[in-house]
Amino acid sequence: MERRHTRKFVRTFFTSPTAVEGEDDSAKMVRSASQLRGMQAPDVWVPDNEDATAPNMRDEGAENIVEVVAENGADFPGEIHPRVVWHRDSPETRYQGFQHMLQIADPEKGAVEHLDGFVIPEVGGIDDWKKADEFFTIVENEYGLEEGSLAMSVIIESGAAELAMGELRDEMGKPDNNLERLFLLVDGEVDYTKDMRAITPTGGLPEWPELRHNTSRAASAAGCISVDGPFDDIRDVEGYRERMTDNQAKGMTGIWSLTPGQVVEANKNPLPPQEGSWLIDADGREAELTDDDGVQVYEGERISLEETGDGYRLTVGTDTEELDADELREELVDLTDYVPSMDDIVDSMEEFEAAKEAGKGAIAITRSTTVRIDGVEIDIASDRMWDEATYQAVQTPITLFQDVYQNRPDQHDDLAELYSEDVVERAMDVGN
Amino acid sequence: MERRHTRKFVRTFFTSPTAVEGEDDSAKMVRSASQLRGMQAPDVWVPDNEDATAPNMRDEGAENIVEVVAENGADFPGEIHPRVVWHRDSPETRYQGFQHMLQIADPEKGAVEHLDGFVIPEVGGIDDWKKADEFFTIVENEYGLEEGSLAMSVIIESGAAELAMGELRDEMGKPDNNLERLFLLVDGEVDYTKDMRAITPTGGLPEWPELRHNTSRAASAAGCISVDGPFDDIRDVEGYRERMTDNQAKGMTGIWSLTPGQVVEANKNPLPPQEGSWLIDADGREAELTDDDGVQVYEGERISLEETGDGYRLTVGTDTEELDADELREELVDLTDYVPSMDDIVDSMEEFEAAKEAGKGAIAITRSTTVRIDGVEIDIASDRMWDEATYQAVQTPITLFQDVYQNRPDQHDDLAELYSEDVVERAMDVGN
Amino acid sequence: MERRHTRKFVRTFFTSPTAVEGEDDSAKMVRSASQLRGMQAPDVWVPDNEDATAPNMRDEGAENIVEVVAENGADFPGEIHPRVVWHRDSPETRYQGFQHMLQIADPEKGAVEHLDGFVIPEVGGIDDWKKADEFFTIVENEYGLEEGSLAMSVIIESGAAELAMGELRDEMGKPDNNLERLFLLVDGEVDYTKDMRAITPTGGLPEWPELRHNTSRAASAAGCISVDGPFDDIRDVEGYRERMTDNQAKGMTGIWSLTPGQVVEANKNPLPPQEGSWLIDADGREAELTDDDGVQVYEGERISLEETGDGYRLTVGTDTEELDADELREELVDLTDYVPSMDDIVDSMEEFEAAKEAGKGAIAITRSTTVRIDGVEIDIASDRMWDEATYQAVQTPITLFQDVYQNRPDQHDDLAELYSEDVVERAMDVGN
Repeated sequence: MERRHTRKFVRTFFTSPTAVEGEDDSAKMVRSASQLRGMQAPDVWVPDNEDATAPNMRDEGAENIVEVVAENGADFPGEIHPRVVWHRDSPETRYQGFQHMLQIADPEKGAVEHLDGFVIPEVGGIDDWKKADEFFTIVENEYGLEEGSLAMSVIIESGAAELAMGELRDEMGKPDNNLERLFLLVDGEVDYTKDMRAITPTGGLPEWPELRHNTSRAASAAGCISVDGPFDDIRDVEGYRERMTDNQAKGMTGIWSLTPGQVVEANKNPLPPQEGSWLIDADGREAELTDDDGVQVYEGERISLEETGDGYRLTVGTDTEELDADELREELVDLTDYVPSMDDIVDSMEEFEAAKEAGKGAIAITRSTTVRIDGVEIDIASDRMWDEATYQAVQTPITLFQDVYQNRPDQHDDLAELYSEDVVERAMDVGN
Repeated sequence: MERRHTRKFVRTFFTSPTAVEGEDDSAKMVRSASQLRGMQAPDVWVPDNEDATAPNMRDEGAENIVEVVAENGADFPGEIHPRVVWHRDSPETRYQGFQHMLQIADPEKGAVEHLDGFVIPEVGGIDDWKKADEFFTIVENEYGLEEGSLAMSVIIESGAAELAMGELRDEMGKPDNNLERLFLLVDGEVDYTKDMRAITPTGGLPEWPELRHNTSRAASAAGCISVDGPFDDIRDVEGYRERMTDNQAKGMTGIWSLTPGQVVEANKNPLPPQEGSWLIDADGREAELTDDDGVQVYEGERISLEETGDGYRLTVGTDTEELDADELREELVDLTDYVPSMDDIVDSMEEFEAAKEAGKGAIAITRSTTVRIDGVEIDIASDRMWDEATYQAVQTPITLFQDVYQNRPDQHDDLAELYSEDVVERAMDVGN
Repeated sequence: MERRHTRKFVRTFFTSPTAVEGEDDSAKMVRSASQLRGMQAPDVWVPDNEDATAPNMRDEGAENIVEVVAENGADFPGEIHPRVVWHRDSPETRYQGFQHMLQIADPEKGAVEHLDGFVIPEVGGIDDWKKADEFFTIVENEYGLEEGSLAMSVIIESGAAELAMGELRDEMGKPDNNLERLFLLVDGEVDYTKDMRAITPTGGLPEWPELRHNTSRAASAAGCISVDGPFDDIRDVEGYRERMTDNQAKGMTGIWSLTPGQVVEANKNPLPPQEGSWLIDADGREAELTDDDGVQVYEGERISLEETGDGYRLTVGTDTEELDADELREELVDLTDYVPSMDDIVDSMEEFEAAKEAGKGAIAITRSTTVRIDGVEIDIASDRMWDEATYQAVQTPITLFQDVYQNRPDQHDDLAELYSEDVVERAMDVGN
């Protein structure tokens, strides 16, 4: 389904407390967040008047949002979507969220022209989503805004909300709602874990792969964008990256960020690497080969290779095989894989486009290199068939890059540092 | 969604054949089951007039249920939910199930006052569930019972039933049904495997993670309780425990039990441990450290550690790193994890409650210990941030404990043996 | 739900380009495919007038289908379901697909009597499926065919289509459609990956376990047959087999084949093996034991066993245990598993049927053998309880065999070669 919003991809969803007790300036956190630029600035910034802000500070938090967004919103490079309070089981909370929306969006206060929408947490079944949507419509009508102009994003933190996502495509477009305003579907795994009553021995969060699949699927079916929830262990950069890689394989290209450091990681992560690299399956563990002047060297101890009089002896883990040169080559082709750089992807896409122009439906894209294990070198090469479908499936990171480049001029310098100017230019050009 | 039944958690679902051929007393099995007490007695006892009982014995089985429940039901410490026959594809079977329900619930026979509901196997789409619900309503009306007073539990053993679970939240509360009577959603993996036509090389059952997720989700969205199916290999206690741990991480806190021995395991398993323990990730395998007078000792061979002149050499699997003391500490913090005891959880909850009272929204919960590997000792400490959401997500095992304690006085002695009286008292008090 | 089509199982879905540019005979590929017989001939043959054929060749492709099917269709041993173009987002493409259906099914051209249906790719929500169904109805009406006589199969390659599968059971049978014509639900992972906007570092396809589960579940709930998408790496026979094993454990018994070689693999794979074999869990890796005259020998290096003075020392990976004979036996029973042959399955089924006739509801099926590790031999035996449900769940491969045998006389010779005649006869007889 067509995505109806300006951004087609959202890499980063960064929340800031709206009012902090005991500070000279209770708006300190939102004020400093509003000044983030470049890779530190998120695609979507969320002044968080719900969980990140103490309940007794939320009225002040709403005022802080208005003040800071009125002042700094025009220059903020990402979109701005404050989170207000909401709960499927509490009419009191829902009414409070509505009042905060009315307060924040009041055009007299000068913030609404910089606001892109609101984030609604703790939604339940689809009828609960419609209650929130109705409040957006009333706010828009009250203030003379176009119906549907304020985007609505939701946090999925209940089984009921997970099920509701399956109904979006059928419900959008009905005359009694404006659900087309839906923008982000954001998983909130901590509260979801509570709602599902899950227990783990250490108290750590379950991975919830099915939830993330269903969120990504709903985004695809209803023209929204899916975003994963917060990654608590802020020091664990490697873990954060692994989670993003896992998410991206599910089609979930955005993730929550709790710090500007996480924003930087998450803004860069879904972009293709500057340099290609080779991987090898070392007895069930993936290892990256080290480039030594064009030769790809395995430096671990799980694979060993030696020349025998008439061939090779390859040991992977505890399995040893005697192979001739062709068998060894075939084995290494099976064990290795190539991670293409942005440059490589653009090259392959251009190659396929040229072939298509010339009337060909499919071409072989070849990757070749020399692999060195224990000093023994072997040349390997593998082909992958590309047809129209492969081309389109592989295009996603390029489309993402183009979306970033068009909507985030403040990141152009960072992108030029990551990639050569020539690659950026070709990447903006390919596939259009 | 609010859970409408007395029990908020069901740990154990224990089935007994209702009539066994060739015995002096064909009711022998139900009679002995009705006398189980304490940890051997299940939260839900299911005199099973379906698969566990031969087809030609089922009329006698229905009589046996009435007789035994009338006699021993008043003193049985768990709930009693007989299973009757049913099949989405067979009106004959459905009618037979209805007749058995009429027979068992006849107030003249004295069993119904001790009955909590019936279990319906082999349901299909939601309209098939409604047929069963209608029979409950007729039985209730016929015998002057309140509409909805008999709980209905279902066995999910078809793709159609799995899909129907997604519709419960929308269907409950409609004027033409009494589906609010729904209590347990129980997976039945053997028949589900048949219905899905799955094949495994050894004939073993697939794990069906998506089914279990969807069952748990439906329980959350519709205010029911999810229960996993039977674990056939009765001797394999370790496997049974692993399955429960896996289920609990999905929010499925109950499981079928085929023997009183399995009941004991499953009654205890979701309760927090008496003693905390440390885990270490030993090259991809989780190992428990051995407590030696407060020092946590790694006794395996997958990790080794030695002091070098100016630091440490840590080997995990085949990877060796040279580290200084701080780096080693950080590495060990990453590799280890703590399984809190009931006492620890109560402590942390009380600590958070006190902080909240004092106006704080988040606090750090610290865990520290000394780890010994190959004789080398290192002190480690890690913090975890707790906010309201963490607090609530971690509360589940305590809520479960409270539900057990309130509803199962016959287990008070066993619980007092597991935990100190002081811990039990504080656990009953915290979070309310 | 009852499967309404002739075939109850479809192992193979083989696509052929309908028109190849630059060949003397552009119909070359469909012509040769139409002559496949025996294990090389698929259960469902799909002359592919969509992705496998260049867009500018598709009108010629439609003509080629008519010509080849009119000529060779009568003798083709499998079903014939051409794929036409379709897209949920393009009325132009949908209209073109409709025109090709009208052209191919024109009875004057002599092909339709050999056609079993059409395959519709790129469907979206359920209403999009209904548009395709309506074109089938118009074609049938136009040409005097019975309504619903042409089967409709769909390719699931969008999140919207994945969700639509959950609605089939409710939508079929409504007076305004003929969706009962639905036959195959086929996953198309390349385009699905594009639609979901998934990114993997190497550009490889995600495994999409949830999609495959949902497709299998929909097939179960709506009386259809589920089929997995193409496996691109044609050289990787082992990978193709592993994918089929994984699919079968999900209830997905069919798979796409891109070459006659893949057809042979996929036709044989879901059939039970000729010979039983023993597996052992070697420190997390499954290894097959080698039969040496009835003794099962472990030849790897991950497990070692030696006799000590008063017992045994068993090492699995890095864990060593001292065991007496009974403990060792128990440990080996846990580590090993048996893959039954067709003969074994038939034996067990017959044994259970005899017991049932004699009034028994459950029996123990025993497997015993001698295992040899490092020269040390141990006799082991394990029991598995079989009841009616086990019997029915284990019956699936036999039912599949019977469906193949009845519908594919051209494979009788191959089957007789795989199994002894006696086994074939008993397999055709059991369970009926």
